[in-house]
Parts: sequence; structure tokens; C-alpha cells
Amino acid sequence: MAYMNDEELASFHKDGFWVNHNLFGSEEIGDLVLCLEEFAASEKPGHVRERNSSTYRAFHGCHLYSEAFNILIRRPELLIPAKKILNDDVYIHQLKVNLKQAFSGEIWPWHQDYIYWRDEDKVPTSQIVSVMVFLDDISEFNGPLFFIPGSHKSGCIEPKISTDAPAGWEGNVSASLTYQVDESTVTKLVSEGGLFSAKGKKGTAVWFDGNLVHASPPNISPVQRRIAILTYNAVSNAPLDKNIKRRPDFLNGRNREPLQELELSI
Amino acid sequence: MAYMNDEELASFHKDGFWVNHNLFGSEEIGDLVLCLEEFAASEKPGHVRERNSSTYRAFHGCHLYSEAFNILIRRPELLIPAKKILNDDVYIHQLKVNLKQAFSGEIWPWHQDYIYWRDEDKVPTSQIVSVMVFLDDISEFNGPLFFIPGSHKSGCIEPKISTDAPAGWEGNVSASLTYQVDESTVTKLVSEGGLFSAKGKKGTAVWFDGNLVHASPPNISPVQRRIAILTYNAVSNAPLDKNIKRRPDFLNGRNREPLQELELSI
Repeated sequence: MAYMNDEELASFHKDGFWVNHNLFGSEEIGDLVLCLEEFAASEKPGHVRERNSSTYRAFHGCHLYSEAFNILIRRPELLIPAKKILNDDVYIHQLKVNLKQAFSGEIWPWHQDYIYWRDEDKVPTSQIVSVMVFLDDISEFNGPLFFIPGSHKSGCIEPKISTDAPAGWEGNVSASLTYQVDESTVTKLVSEGGLFSAKGKKGTAVWFDGNLVHASPPNISPVQRRIAILTYNAVSNAPLDKNIKRRPDFLNGRNREPLQELELSI
Repeated sequence: MAYMNDEELASFHKDGFWVNHNLFGSEEIGDLVLCLEEFAASEKPGHVRERNSSTYRAFHGCHLYSEAFNILIRRPELLIPAKKILNDDVYIHQLKVNLKQAFSGEIWPWHQDYIYWRDEDKVPTSQIVSVMVFLDDISEFNGPLFFIPGSHKSGCIEPKISTDAPAGWEGNVSASLTYQVDESTVTKLVSEGGLFSAKGKKGTAVWFDGNLVHASPPNISPVQRRIAILTYNAVSNAPLDKNIKRRPDFLNGRNREPLQELELSI
């Protein structure tokens, strides 16, 4: 079964993202959401809180300890397009759930993702792709991601280094992000490509390029906005840094065996 | 000429707001925008900066020193609906330009407006109405106002008092607003009335009730989002507090003479 046809793939490469509405049903999303309640009840190294409150901001590496998320990464709906986009076998370099909780979920400043994987993890090329799966309905009100269409074509942009990011890997996932895209570059890219917001019903999946410039506003609404983000890397693009100090496994996945699709009994 | 018919008035009373798209043309808006550049070049008591930067957040009382804004308050397109809504002669209780500048414009937390006029200015009843005029195109990306339709019917809600608002009137116009609506009330009101965002082309005017619960996210986009907000009060509803300490004229207008429509030469 084709989960991304050639036209859809071309659209992804042109814009730097592609939206597949309602890819998963309520039951599948429900299984994942149930897990989140368990995660919230325990402290784990990959759990991150918001800058200005004790609210959880994100859970990292959920597939490393949760069966439901370990199944998710092997779902053909996600794995087949990842292989098609990267034209290779793939593994999970990073997986997280960004919670953007009602009233308290903070911003993500303008940034690209690949620079973190390049500079922190030594991923050699941008042959790496993310897909977010909506765990809630996402509207203009609860902090959707804003994309700048076509901005991935700029490649990896020289970053503005945050002056108030927390030290270490925590800065890489904070509202004061370590590597940001400066305002004049954002202005130029938006004048060329405009803005797009990633909205849709829960179960929607959105693919986006590692060099796509994006940001998201805080969630001031009473409706939570949870997304799972799976980052697939080409097996041939795995970091070569086996002997250097690396970010934790939940940010820089150690298991680089090619993933095989689950056989779904439908 | 009727600038608000009975059906439109009924819609305003039902929802607590009413949008009149493209009421003013580019030339009229251009005159106002030109003034803003002058305002920015001078320090005035009613000029307010953002909490975390030196960026201007708002200019208050512009009609007190600017001919273009003094004309605006008398425009029949604005004055006639104000009289119709309030069923009385009116004067300007407050006028401001909220700038919500590109990248730096901060949030307005959930709040109602009338409580400021009641508790700070002793305006006896909520027979007072605001109209905002868009000085820029407003989209989902540059910090539109979020309204909770029907929330004005709750009347003046017991506020949550901000613990980090600046002292004095500055707190009333800060991103750490003095009087806010608490999260559980917002949640309940949104579950009943949903959310509406005030978007449109520059020149659009949006009327809203003094008790309508509203908020707006920060502007993380490269596109500024400037609005003029005119608050008309019924002459019969003027504060009775002539002898007490009052907020400055640019927040609590002293000139309570009934306004007369300009005769437009069209």
C-alpha cells in the first residue's frame, strides 16, 4: 500500500513539508495518549519542563520505554514514506512528544532542526526527516507549528546563538533554544515563501524537512496541543562519532538497525 | 447612511462583537500609520514599552495630540454605530494604538476591559463599547485577538489579580495585566462559546463589548500587527468621581462632551 505517492513526494520536496490529514484513527491515537498519562506520573531523564513553570514541556525517547511508541515507529504509514523520502533504510534518531499544554505551553522560536543533529550529534548530511503525529486537534488557537514554505532550500543556515539557553542538551529543547534563525533571515524567507500553519484533526501526520525553518507560538488556549515527532535518519547517514561524548540516547538514538514495517492485521 | 443595521446590531449583542470588513480604505489607514512613525520618535507619558524589551507596546491618547486620530474618533463610520450600540450620545473614554510589533509584540492575557474602567475609573455601568481599527492586515500568524463568543453575557467576572503586574496604571496595559480572567472560567466559557479570532485586511473594524473575554498571543511573525482601539462611553455613563485621584487623561478621558459626526466630503 502506498502511503506517499510520487506527486505527494514532489510536493514534500518543493515545500519542505507535506500534510497527510487523518492518517490515524481515534483508537490508535487513544493508545498513545493513554501512555502520556503514565509518563507524566514518573520522572525520567528525557522529561523536560517549561522554562517558567513546572509544567511538562516534552517527553523524549518514549519509544525506548513504551510499547505503544515502539509500535508507532514501525507503522508502515510512517516508515514507508520515511524510506521513500530518504531513499534508504532508516532508524529513529530522535522521538519526542511535545505537549504544549493548555494555557502554559511556551513558544518554540524560529529554528531549523538539522543544525542540532549536525552540530550536536555529527549527523553528516541533512538526509534526515521528521514526521509529527497530532495527538490532539490542532487549530489556530492552540499553538500550531508555523512553517516557512520552501525555506529548506536555504540549507543549514548560520544560526543565531541564544544567550539565555540552558547549558547542555536542555538548551536544545528549551523555549530559549540554543540555535535559532535570526529575524532578518526569517523576514526574507517569509517574504519569499509566506507562512503555513500545520493544523488538522488528531491523527493527522505532517512530514517536514530537517532544514525547514519553523516556530510555534505559546498555547494560550484552554485546549492542549500534543504532538509526537519522529525523526527518521537514513542508515547511511548515521553519526560516525562512536568515540566522542554524545547527547543521551533519547536525543541521539543508538539503535541504528534498519527498521522493518509492522505487519498490520486489518 | 447606516453603518450598522439592526441585524448587525443584534449580532453584536448576541456574540459580544461584530466585524465590519474593509470599512476604511488604504488612504485613510495610511494617514494614521504615518502618524505612528512620528509618535515613535518622541517620548510621551502614554507611550508604553514591552515588558522584556525596549520595543513600544502601545501609544495611548493619540487623539489628544494628533489631528488624524482626532478626526478618526468623529468619523461617522465609527461614531454612528457607537451611538446605536449605547443608545446615547458618546465621548471617548480611552483611545490607544496597540502595536504588537513583528517578532517582539507580547501577549495580552485573558481579560475583560470593563473591569478596568469600573474599578480604576469608576465608570458606573458596562454601557461602554470599543471598536478596533486594523492598521495592518491581521492573520493567524501575527497575534490576532481571540474572542470567546457570548462571554460578555457573564457580566463583570471576579478577576484573578496578577501577582507580577507593574504598580499603577502601567499594570493595566502590561503583558502582566492587573485583572485577568482565571483559567477555569476561560475553560468553561470556551466550552460553551468556542473561540473566534479577529482577522482581516487593514481598514477592517471590529466592535466588541466591554465584558467580552479576550486575549491575544505574542507576534512571533515578521509582520507587524497594529490596531487602534477606540473606547466610546455613553455620556450618561461618565465617571462620577471628579474629586478623586484618577488615571491619566489618556486612559480616563476628561473631555466628556458629546461627539458630533464629521461631515465627510465624498
